Amino acid sequence: MGTDRLRLAIDMDEVIADAFTAQKSWYCETHGYDWNDEVLQGRHFNELANPEHAAEMETLLHRGEFFRGLNVMPGAQNALLTLSERFEIFITTAAMEYPASCAAKFGWLQEHFPFISPLQIVFCGDKSILAADYLIDDNVRHFSRFKGQGILFSAAHNQYVDWTPRVKNWTEAVSLLDGLATH
Amino acid sequence: MGTDRLRLAIDMDEVIADAFTAQKSWYCETHGYDWNDEVLQGRHFNELANPEHAAEMETLLHRGEFFRGLNVMPGAQNALLTLSERFEIFITTAAMEYPASCAAKFGWLQEHFPFISPLQIVFCGDKSILAADYLIDDNVRHFSRFKGQGILFSAAHNQYVDWTPRVKNWTEAVSLLDGLATH
Repeated sequence: MGTDRLRLAIDMDEVIADAFTAQKSWYCETHGYDWNDEVLQGRHFNELANPEHAAEMETLLHRGEFFRGLNVMPGAQNALLTLSERFEIFITTAAMEYPASCAAKFGWLQEHFPFISPLQIVFCGDKSILAADYLIDDNVRHFSRFKGQGILFSAAHNQYVDWTPRVKNWTEAVSLLDGLATH
Repeated sequence: MGTDRLRLAIDMDEVIADAFTAQKSWYCETHGYDWNDEVLQGRHFNELANPEHAAEMETLLHRGEFFRGLNVMPGAQNALLTLSERFEIFITTAAMEYPASCAAKFGWLQEHFPFISPLQIVFCGDKSILAADYLIDDNVRHFSRFKGQGILFSAAHNQYVDWTPRVKNWTEAVSLLDGLATH
């Protein structure tokens, strides 16, 4: 990659940005859904909600502003700071699913990850376009044509997906990557 | 790349979108600059204009809407349609220099290049993140860490830059790429 450091691509939603909790809260507050953790395992919200309510959420996501207010995933800031020393980090999000989200996502990154340069941000669709050694993502579909190693970040929806390596949180992700970087 | 087709990454400004003419017209209409072609060879507008005027243009670019009204570069639509048969095409633009331009650039592509899927659009900063066989761009700085072959698309500002291969227009670009794809 023209540098001594390995290159690490990192997804946003469900990996560094907590879209899951925000969506769950919206469904609860707006329509009274009270899903427990068990029912959400292996499922997406739109499989559980009334189709009209799921369409409302989709409209909200398409408007883009929803992504501006997401919480940071636990430990993500420190993890990325630590990993920056050893890896060349790129934030790589499939923003083209919701093109209007680009400005919101950019503002969110500037606020919560100010140490990530805009030059290291990638808004794309098909992640096989990424030239990186590792990709941390909650969707295995992005790994199929990716030339590097996909690392699955656990999320409710991917609980029954078979993929190795898988990490549960940022503590596990840093441990795994520490091992890889020293090989 | 997981496909039989070679992958071709294509820049937007000065390659498929005529930002040069739009900027030149703005400088002329707003501040009366009447630069001839010769004085623009090898130079950027901000090297020639009064710094205050250049700063106004920069503000305009940062607002983003400027990019929505650009003309298509001559022959670009037919060229990309033709090349799509033989190459897997991605539009790869350094939109992170002007983050507010993302929505405008996306809308422009949907209007003028409706056959390009949103999944094939990449807004990035450092283009070394692209996994592609070829990159057509008017800035050689994007070629330095790019792992594929950079193809320089001629623009006034790059006239004195030394790079091979260079193409003057989309007719030359299609000829060159036809030769490469059949090798």
